[in-house]
Amino acid sequence: MSVQSQVEQWGIHEVVLKGPSSGNPFVEVSLSALFRYGRRKVDVAGFYDGDGIYRIRFMPDTRGQWTYVTRSNRKALSGKRGAFTCTPPSPGNHGPVRVANTFHFAYADGTPYRQIGTTCYAWAHQGDKLEQQTLRTLSRSPFNKVRMCVFPKRYAFNQNEPPCYPFAGRRGRWDFARFNPKFWRRFEKRIGQLRELGIEADLILFHPYDGGHWGFDRMDAASDDRYLRYAVARLAAYRNVWWSMANEFDFMKEKKPADWDRYFRIVKGADPYGHLRSVHNGRRLYDHGKPWVTHASIQNGMAVEDFGRAVLYRDVYGKPIVFDEVRYEGNIPQRWGNITAQEMVHDFWQGTIAGTYVGHGETYLHPRDILWWSKGGVLHGQSPPRLAFLKSILETAPPEGIEPIDKWWDVHTAGKAGEYYLVYLGRERPAEWLFELPRHGLAEGMEFAVEVLDTWNMTVTPVEGVFRIIADDKYRYHAQGHRKVPLPGLPYLALRITRVGERR
Amino acid sequence: MSVQSQVEQWGIHEVVLKGPSSGNPFVEVSLSALFRYGRRKVDVAGFYDGDGIYRIRFMPDTRGQWTYVTRSNRKALSGKRGAFTCTPPSPGNHGPVRVANTFHFAYADGTPYRQIGTTCYAWAHQGDKLEQQTLRTLSRSPFNKVRMCVFPKRYAFNQNEPPCYPFAGRRGRWDFARFNPKFWRRFEKRIGQLRELGIEADLILFHPYDGGHWGFDRMDAASDDRYLRYAVARLAAYRNVWWSMANEFDFMKEKKPADWDRYFRIVKGADPYGHLRSVHNGRRLYDHGKPWVTHASIQNGMAVEDFGRAVLYRDVYGKPIVFDEVRYEGNIPQRWGNITAQEMVHDFWQGTIAGTYVGHGETYLHPRDILWWSKGGVLHGQSPPRLAFLKSILETAPPEGIEPIDKWWDVHTAGKAGEYYLVYLGRERPAEWLFELPRHGLAEGMEFAVEVLDTWNMTVTPVEGVFRIIADDKYRYHAQGHRKVPLPGLPYLALRITRVGERR
Repeated sequence: MSVQSQVEQWGIHEVVLKGPSSGNPFVEVSLSALFRYGRRKVDVAGFYDGDGIYRIRFMPDTRGQWTYVTRSNRKALSGKRGAFTCTPPSPGNHGPVRVANTFHFAYADGTPYRQIGTTCYAWAHQGDKLEQQTLRTLSRSPFNKVRMCVFPKRYAFNQNEPPCYPFAGRRGRWDFARFNPKFWRRFEKRIGQLRELGIEADLILFHPYDGGHWGFDRMDAASDDRYLRYAVARLAAYRNVWWSMANEFDFMKEKKPADWDRYFRIVKGADPYGHLRSVHNGRRLYDHGKPWVTHASIQNGMAVEDFGRAVLYRDVYGKPIVFDEVRYEGNIPQRWGNITAQEMVHDFWQGTIAGTYVGHGETYLHPRDILWWSKGGVLHGQSPPRLAFLKSILETAPPEGIEPIDKWWDVHTAGKAGEYYLVYLGRERPAEWLFELPRHGLAEGMEFAVEVLDTWNMTVTPVEGVFRIIADDKYRYHAQGHRKVPLPGLPYLALRITRVGERR
Repeated sequence: MSVQSQVEQWGIHEVVLKGPSSGNPFVEVSLSALFRYGRRKVDVAGFYDGDGIYRIRFMPDTRGQWTYVTRSNRKALSGKRGAFTCTPPSPGNHGPVRVANTFHFAYADGTPYRQIGTTCYAWAHQGDKLEQQTLRTLSRSPFNKVRMCVFPKRYAFNQNEPPCYPFAGRRGRWDFARFNPKFWRRFEKRIGQLRELGIEADLILFHPYDGGHWGFDRMDAASDDRYLRYAVARLAAYRNVWWSMANEFDFMKEKKPADWDRYFRIVKGADPYGHLRSVHNGRRLYDHGKPWVTHASIQNGMAVEDFGRAVLYRDVYGKPIVFDEVRYEGNIPQRWGNITAQEMVHDFWQGTIAGTYVGHGETYLHPRDILWWSKGGVLHGQSPPRLAFLKSILETAPPEGIEPIDKWWDVHTAGKAGEYYLVYLGRERPAEWLFELPRHGLAEGMEFAVEVLDTWNMTVTPVEGVFRIIADDKYRYHAQGHRKVPLPGLPYLALRITRVGERR
């Protein structure tokens, strides 16, 4: 078989082969392809998709002519050659998201990725109708990342069975050595739909919300590892995939600490594209300093509740810090699920000025238990429009990302020294703000424009005139005449301060 | 030579030998002794003390009969045998301090070590008169740890030369391969005096406050390593020694990151007693998760300035967190040296309720530049008596150490669940406090006594009657009748809440 076709950069070139269907092809048949671009070689695992169909999915990262040859322990699948041309990406395709500037993210084409994530753990296991509604909701939302589980979820407000299961067999009689292609085709369709919406899929590979009901939380090590390799072989070519080893990994009492290291290593080794890798905690943090962790995925709402907390994690890990769970906007009795919309928006701003990222979730009681946090559906809360406002602010911020300017001293001020500042005031509501910036990158005579941002009411109000700075203090610059900015006496205000006139 | 003598447990048994003085004994003569207790063997390095005198210092940790035999590449020093009896420790000798209960410290005999540290970087390099004054001041202070540099210091307010130098030679012509025994005898005398006062000596092995003036900050690797081994051989037998690889390690631009790992490994390998090991940061944290770090020694004043910050480091490192530098009480222009006494005391309480430890320092301008933080002398500030008050509170607290009760949710409450609580209110000054505790370890009907602690005015005021708790909330217990504690409307208050009646 020789195929000549075109695929856009960071799209998927899929090689489809017909092969044996006898025995258990999932474990007995090995298949991979060596893709070549000039001297470069990329080894990509294939997978069995049932009914004698084998697939190898490849996401090319370089434009031009690629060739491949397959390898297998079955003659029918071995030595198949082909070629294709990788063409420029279509609009909106910026490639996979990578770590950029130590603490931030960017797409492979260099476009900054300003993360405004949300959480719908089991949305892809709810049946077509609700899932399509979720996609519609997401398409109109500010969210550009969804945390979602591969396995179905059983937990408070989550008692329904999914439309299908990842393994062959049935409850109590799973065959963990045989995957259920129907499940995976359904699941990857959803990932593809998110990709078309420009939304990253932060795939949660294990989670404790099973409690042995299905038993996907307590498979043996060989089954865990086989599952991971199968998931990576099927899904890694989707450019919007991230790998989250688990949600609340430490609540999975069946796993040992070393298991998590092994999962990371398997996923890292199997993924030809180096998608982002993380693991999310319950009460105990994983050591995010380990080399296979690309960014710290942290559950800790307290850390973004007030100033000077979130920033501490940056120094420790030297990697992007993502608070993937900070409690949810909602009204359920559980304390992790009943913060106000104001608090949720405040958490995002806290995370932002700490040089970190925050994830959204929503848990409003619903007559049919359709809570966004788990099942998707529609959003009922008031935070999403405000998160869209924050996103619009970030879109015109320096592409390098928002950095604390004077960490450990000024917990309100972040941005890019000498050029751009966000000063967030949180719940305080002073009637005026003394223009004052940390000295880094400043020189007397520089001029700045100031705007007052109302993060809740979503307004941007320019302050008249420019602020010309003077060096009258060892550590802080002020404006001539110690000029102050009048404020409307509301909480949740921020100041955007931008240098005007010539840049260095 | 055969010596029969007595030494108390965790005291020093010193073997003194006469040997060659020709050549360079510091590098040419190797000497060690194998100490034996039953089947146990401890290998201890000796050192050359000048004038043909060699010493081997040993701190026995077990009572009873010990023997030893020396080894050397010089016949005069080799095969010397001796024995001694290790007797019970004298009052006040509890042995070296160790990590206990993951986040806390205890002496080797199990006595809790409630750390109230201070900082006098160069006090031991100021000449006898001032050094004796410093010792007198310390003897009347609450401090049970001093951070102090082995090398002299040159920095703002520190321009004087020390009485003597660690190496032979003179400035510009040091012989880093020859130590100056006079310096070391003087220095270890001070360590011994601290030991007699019950004060731990957190020895800072390298520091950047040299800037090439003496050049002890930029020796070659062989000299660094030789110096470390010599320091450990001379000093490790003092039970009050801790090893701090550096102050502001990242400000030593001559060192590479790997150097610090090597220093740790050398010290750990050379020290037969496993004294505590740490390294103190400037702007960049060392990875305190590394196995040779016993506790995180952190400079970050912001982390103890407000609630919910310090506690975050605990989860990350899973080791004791010691904020060895949180800015200093004083009035110098530098912002790290002009916090108020109130702020200093507040920092200690913040650290305490976060389950961490804080260090004191003082920088009041002085006509002869005698600032406590660097040179010692006398204390001018108002925080030390309040730190003594805190120490008195800790002395009756549970021996396991103060633990956050509901981390990430309740940033005010720490202690031991079900038994003992400190609730710190910081700068807030509510007129009353609703009795309320996190559910952990509680059951309806338990009774508690409440005292109001004024951490600044150093008073303990019992609240009349007992508080009998009811379970009227999912996460928090209240007192019957939702009883409140009236407060005097002052800042810096804490509540001490102790279970009364039967214990579980």
